[in-house]
Amino acid sequence: MVVKVYGPHYASTKRVLVCLAEKGIEFETLPVDLIKGENRNPEFLELQPFGSVPVIQDGDYTLYESRAIIRYYAEKHKSQGTDLLGESIEERGRVEQWLEVEAQNYHPQIYNLTLHILFAAALGFAPDEKLIRESEEKLAKVLDIYEERLSRSKYLAGDFFSLADLSHLPFTQYLVGPMKKEFMIRSRKHVSAWWDDISSRPSWKKVSLL
Amino acid sequence: MVVKVYGPHYASTKRVLVCLAEKGIEFETLPVDLIKGENRNPEFLELQPFGSVPVIQDGDYTLYESRAIIRYYAEKHKSQGTDLLGESIEERGRVEQWLEVEAQNYHPQIYNLTLHILFAAALGFAPDEKLIRESEEKLAKVLDIYEERLSRSKYLAGDFFSLADLSHLPFTQYLVGPMKKEFMIRSRKHVSAWWDDISSRPSWKKVSLL
Repeated sequence: MVVKVYGPHYASTKRVLVCLAEKGIEFETLPVDLIKGENRNPEFLELQPFGSVPVIQDGDYTLYESRAIIRYYAEKHKSQGTDLLGESIEERGRVEQWLEVEAQNYHPQIYNLTLHILFAAALGFAPDEKLIRESEEKLAKVLDIYEERLSRSKYLAGDFFSLADLSHLPFTQYLVGPMKKEFMIRSRKHVSAWWDDISSRPSWKKVSLL
Repeated sequence: MVVKVYGPHYASTKRVLVCLAEKGIEFETLPVDLIKGENRNPEFLELQPFGSVPVIQDGDYTLYESRAIIRYYAEKHKSQGTDLLGESIEERGRVEQWLEVEAQNYHPQIYNLTLHILFAAALGFAPDEKLIRESEEKLAKVLDIYEERLSRSKYLAGDFFSLADLSHLPFTQYLVGPMKKEFMIRSRKHVSAWWDDISSRPSWKKVSLL
């Protein structure tokens, strides 16, 4: 069964696609243009009532929220492809902790930066320069904690690549690429080595080109 | 082994405590006063580098982020007390989806309301009235989607109580109690019945009094 993935050109969806690539699960992508408001069409809202991407359809199973979808596939196909959850319940707990750190501490800041630096013009609003400054400052503090953590283990949840690392890929690519803020990564030795490691995985090289 | 839980008087920590109560896991609580800044003490930052509650210690295993901790205990003691993850991987996927909706759609709005209506004075800043209005409007839209969902199933993830429902308890209690916004729940028939159901569970009756 080929998994259908809606909205492949957006960062949250790439979180799902890189997970499917790590697990060796076949997928096909269906474009959804957020700028044109295709996510507010009744057919799309039937699948995802909040009007967000991604959504997946796997046979008659529909699921949304990128971090829910990656947990689902990491568990459903635990022994296929890369194990992304750790070997024990304690390791999975650690993966969950750093997935939550990504969602609650890292993401809000990098999302503000992405929205106001990269997409404000296309969405027709003026970038909020104060919010950009504050978000960059907060992200720097989060990255200082990552630097300390990554001085003690190769990846966030331990010495194994997991959903927690994977979940950082798409928005961090915006940061180091089009946002021209690669210095935030490069000025931190262990974060820099971690970024080189995770962003050079074949799964990400494939998905980042979509 | 009795689980040590730091910061019991805060809503995020109560998410953990109600989960432990549902699973029948013994715990002891250790106060952390955020108003006094005890969460910025070096000993606390050693446990939780971001300076947030909750943190748990279970023997020599330390874990933070409330939604990571509840997943950890729901999985570790799956067959003890209430099963909070669903019976199949597909049901767990649905639990994860609604846990993410809580974290990404519901929580940011209710957190803004809590901070600016209940805690601004104690924390020494002026409530942002515009943010309060906008957050209430956004929360109303989220609750409209919950209303539709709960017209089709008794709980968020299906016809079983799960982590997804449980995760809403502490902040929604602020909303209907001290924030005096119970009308947001009562004006929606299915949300209202859901709230009566989940907030009358013995686990919550016990934990909400802490």
